[in-house]
Amino acid sequence: MARWDPRGEERLRTAAIELFLEHGYDNVTVAQIADRAGLTRRTFSRYFADKRDVLFAGSDQLPQLMADALQRVDPKIPPFEAVLHALTDIAPLLGDRVAEHAPQRQAIIASSPELQERGHAKFADAADALARELRDRGADESSAQLFAEVGVAIFRRGFSQWVASPEDTDLASRIRQAATQLSNAVPQRSN
Amino acid sequence: MARWDPRGEERLRTAAIELFLEHGYDNVTVAQIADRAGLTRRTFSRYFADKRDVLFAGSDQLPQLMADALQRVDPKIPPFEAVLHALTDIAPLLGDRVAEHAPQRQAIIASSPELQERGHAKFADAADALARELRDRGADESSAQLFAEVGVAIFRRGFSQWVASPEDTDLASRIRQAATQLSNAVPQRSN
Repeated sequence: MARWDPRGEERLRTAAIELFLEHGYDNVTVAQIADRAGLTRRTFSRYFADKRDVLFAGSDQLPQLMADALQRVDPKIPPFEAVLHALTDIAPLLGDRVAEHAPQRQAIIASSPELQERGHAKFADAADALARELRDRGADESSAQLFAEVGVAIFRRGFSQWVASPEDTDLASRIRQAATQLSNAVPQRSN
Repeated sequence: MARWDPRGEERLRTAAIELFLEHGYDNVTVAQIADRAGLTRRTFSRYFADKRDVLFAGSDQLPQLMADALQRVDPKIPPFEAVLHALTDIAPLLGDRVAEHAPQRQAIIASSPELQERGHAKFADAADALARELRDRGADESSAQLFAEVGVAIFRRGFSQWVASPEDTDLASRIRQAATQLSNAVPQRSN
């Protein structure tokens, strides 16, 4: 019987990512992943529900993580700016968690419509969680959803930029850059 | 044998929406929809691939419609404003097409995670199509995706507001209102 191995999860993830890149996501089985990691299928299922879960494990917490961060932002800060605060606040934590395999994960997800759908759903959930929290802060129904979705678009853009060259700067800076890019493009109030 | 009936599609759609609202989307079969419309299953499959398609028929064209509209916008207009132009340009056409059952459709989609996922995927495709077109216009990679996604968020917000009371104003005005709402919330350039 396999003994508990604190590095089991990481070994499985590394094996899965190698195999997905070598053979294409659709052509890889859980048995092959376990085999490459030198572990059993049973051990695999201790850590992950299925092979898709290897790529998304942890990201189920993203909506709650974002909502909690928003709750901690000073209630006097207006809604849209509060969303930006929340996103840059959680950036260091997220950056640490996903940094290692981030470019490979993005390439694998981009190669599969099924994975892309899961990715879209994840970010839609995140936007919904932020919108709920904004309404709790007193934002009106109509702006809450809009600001939440635009916040998530900024986050995704910053994340992609950061993943492309994580050594250049940190995720929070990339998120702020994306927000500035949008500020510079949006028609100004006086228009 | 059923004869060609130009109103077949509309009868099937009306029947489907009634049944979805009465019994819940998951509990309705294609046979029941055809039955309620007084048509055969074979006639149903002339118009729709499956019951989900009744709610999304036509929306597969949304990405191309948005991209084509963007292509028609004066190339001198900067990218983000060009997206807003394109979205308000297609609004009258979209408004006419979906006006009749729009509130019911939204309620049914909101009731089913499967339908919501399809909806998210549809808007993600629309953002990708806009981003491609922005790059063709010369926008850089990094701003193209961001502006496209924010444009789609504005469109969705305007659409929801319009669907809630279509008699109050037109879809294009609702999209412009959502854009203004965002302008007013985004930190200004001087900051």
